Amino acid sequence: MSWYQKRRERIYDWMAGEGISLVMIEDSEGRRNQAIRWLTGQPGDALLFLSADRRSLLVPWDINMARIYAEADALIPYGEFSRRPLKALAAAAERLGVPRGSRIEIPGDTSYPRFLQCVEELSDYDIICREGSVWTELQKGRAVKDEDEIAIYRKVSKITNEIISLLEKRIRQGKLKTEAEVAFFIDAEGRKRGCEGMGFETIAAGPSRSFGIHAFPSFTGEQFGGPGLSILDFGLVFGGYTSDITLTFAAEPLSKGQEKMISLVEKAYALASSMIKSGLPTRELAQAVDGLFGSNKLSMPHALGHGIGLQAHEAPSLHNRSENEWVLEPGMILALEPGLYDPVHGGCRMENDFLVTEEGAEVLTESRIIRL
Amino acid sequence: MSWYQKRRERIYDWMAGEGISLVMIEDSEGRRNQAIRWLTGQPGDALLFLSADRRSLLVPWDINMARIYAEADALIPYGEFSRRPLKALAAAAERLGVPRGSRIEIPGDTSYPRFLQCVEELSDYDIICREGSVWTELQKGRAVKDEDEIAIYRKVSKITNEIISLLEKRIRQGKLKTEAEVAFFIDAEGRKRGCEGMGFETIAAGPSRSFGIHAFPSFTGEQFGGPGLSILDFGLVFGGYTSDITLTFAAEPLSKGQEKMISLVEKAYALASSMIKSGLPTRELAQAVDGLFGSNKLSMPHALGHGIGLQAHEAPSLHNRSENEWVLEPGMILALEPGLYDPVHGGCRMENDFLVTEEGAEVLTESRIIRL
Repeated sequence: MSWYQKRRERIYDWMAGEGISLVMIEDSEGRRNQAIRWLTGQPGDALLFLSADRRSLLVPWDINMARIYAEADALIPYGEFSRRPLKALAAAAERLGVPRGSRIEIPGDTSYPRFLQCVEELSDYDIICREGSVWTELQKGRAVKDEDEIAIYRKVSKITNEIISLLEKRIRQGKLKTEAEVAFFIDAEGRKRGCEGMGFETIAAGPSRSFGIHAFPSFTGEQFGGPGLSILDFGLVFGGYTSDITLTFAAEPLSKGQEKMISLVEKAYALASSMIKSGLPTRELAQAVDGLFGSNKLSMPHALGHGIGLQAHEAPSLHNRSENEWVLEPGMILALEPGLYDPVHGGCRMENDFLVTEEGAEVLTESRIIRL
Repeated sequence: MSWYQKRRERIYDWMAGEGISLVMIEDSEGRRNQAIRWLTGQPGDALLFLSADRRSLLVPWDINMARIYAEADALIPYGEFSRRPLKALAAAAERLGVPRGSRIEIPGDTSYPRFLQCVEELSDYDIICREGSVWTELQKGRAVKDEDEIAIYRKVSKITNEIISLLEKRIRQGKLKTEAEVAFFIDAEGRKRGCEGMGFETIAAGPSRSFGIHAFPSFTGEQFGGPGLSILDFGLVFGGYTSDITLTFAAEPLSKGQEKMISLVEKAYALASSMIKSGLPTRELAQAVDGLFGSNKLSMPHALGHGIGLQAHEAPSLHNRSENEWVLEPGMILALEPGLYDPVHGGCRMENDFLVTEEGAEVLTESRIIRL
């Protein structure tokens, strides 16, 4: 049985337990959901229908692409339904023999107006749209990586680390001078090593722009690595899975304020990484770091981190809020990224990827604050 | 009065006409909406509140960034509301003095579960979530470019055309050999000319991969421009606005099937571009092209085109469906992109950007099918 089939079986089991006859998953522009890639291998733009009798029907935008990449019991081009999701849903229910009156679960992020339309157009069925449910089941499935995924993470981490070393060398030698040179170098070196691209637009922000959490524009022709703090945040994608790391480059002269930021971010990072272990509620991790910054009268304007996988931001969330809390489990892969930002001193962030184990965590990547 | 202020005034006028006390706009990960940039200059990740008494309150994720880029009557960092949209909404309603019981319009793409939560948490107000309404008003406003935007489009088109010429030369000279070299070249040349980045990930697909509508991965280390059909689809962003063009490179030997695709795509392009004029329903444009392909027993698996602007896909839509139809108006900027794809012959697409005028259209970009 393939990994895709195993993952679908998990969802079929869940459907049987909940009495759901059909689940519809959507991946489209503006509503990306890599669950379809996780379940079938299809890399993008499709609807996926899973039925209670354990059959999968994929409706891809690009049928030629799906014939190469996707594993599903049946394929129908989206064009046959005029690329209308509700038309495809009605046809899928018919084709998969979903009994009238039974429960169909549509995406939990379906807009309220679209939900009303769906209930009207598919009035023969019981349409369900909610958070939690199969969406949490998919998040949980994706959050705890299987052997195949962990093997991919070892590979993408190795590539990421090679490129971190090269970056340090080239920047020290003055061979990569501008933000754009640094960003293109990473992308090109990744692709040479078999990466399919970047997990998100690389952020390369020299000292005058590193105050931004996500600098805008994400990189320019300006100097990178000059006096002060420069931030470099990138992720390489291999076999669909992205790494996500941030390096800070600190070049003399540094102000007291900058030294304080570096020291606190390193402390926060050490604290958080030492806490990771199976059974820990993610909010406790985030609270510890927010507490450390707070006791120094500073605050971090973003979450401490997040799970990574087929998307750069996945479950589990790692933030200091009472909603969407998770408990760490072996096999989860996390990016921890404590950071501080100041309009005068610039920004400092350090981010690595961790595999949660029974006893603690294994750090997969080797980014750090580099003093030039 | 700034362009941003003028645009906000338009929305205030609409609100007055509709009796809406407060509008909430959201731009967040997975739910990008550049309307906030259009109305304030803030490039990303924020909530924007517009009140009936003509005040704007911006709640940015990154306050340092907003202080540089954003024009709004008030700024409050999102962190003050624990980055929770409903908490920010309740506070904004309070702060802007929105009377209890009055109508608050939340994003039309708000999920059904979130809508229920909003109605519960803000039970003192009349919460409205619908399609059309202010969302269509914003689309309309953005679809018809003002003088400032048209000036930016002249600039980004000029840069795009310079790079098209360079590309043709370098590819002919054999200086850009792989898909990745081509993609990095465009990005680097764009940034040299002041572009802030790419409007979407460049698609550079050599003959073995051009059958994909959007090739996956979008570019690799493989050969570009070898025998057969290669597709190059990119957009450069200047001042926030993206161009969107596609070149096909055709290199001998070409099969009869490939020659037929080239000839039909050129015919479809000529037909569509000759039809553009103020007053034309967009569906008629799409139907004409689908009809041409259909009479040759072929079909195009995507829409004929789309408006462009702060996002690569904007109003007006240009497809052959009965929903979301538009009528062309002077000042709209469109990308027309007829294309055909075949698993054996590969793909052929040609795409240029047009400014709709009273009499017809002005073509802004100079992409074409280039025979190598």
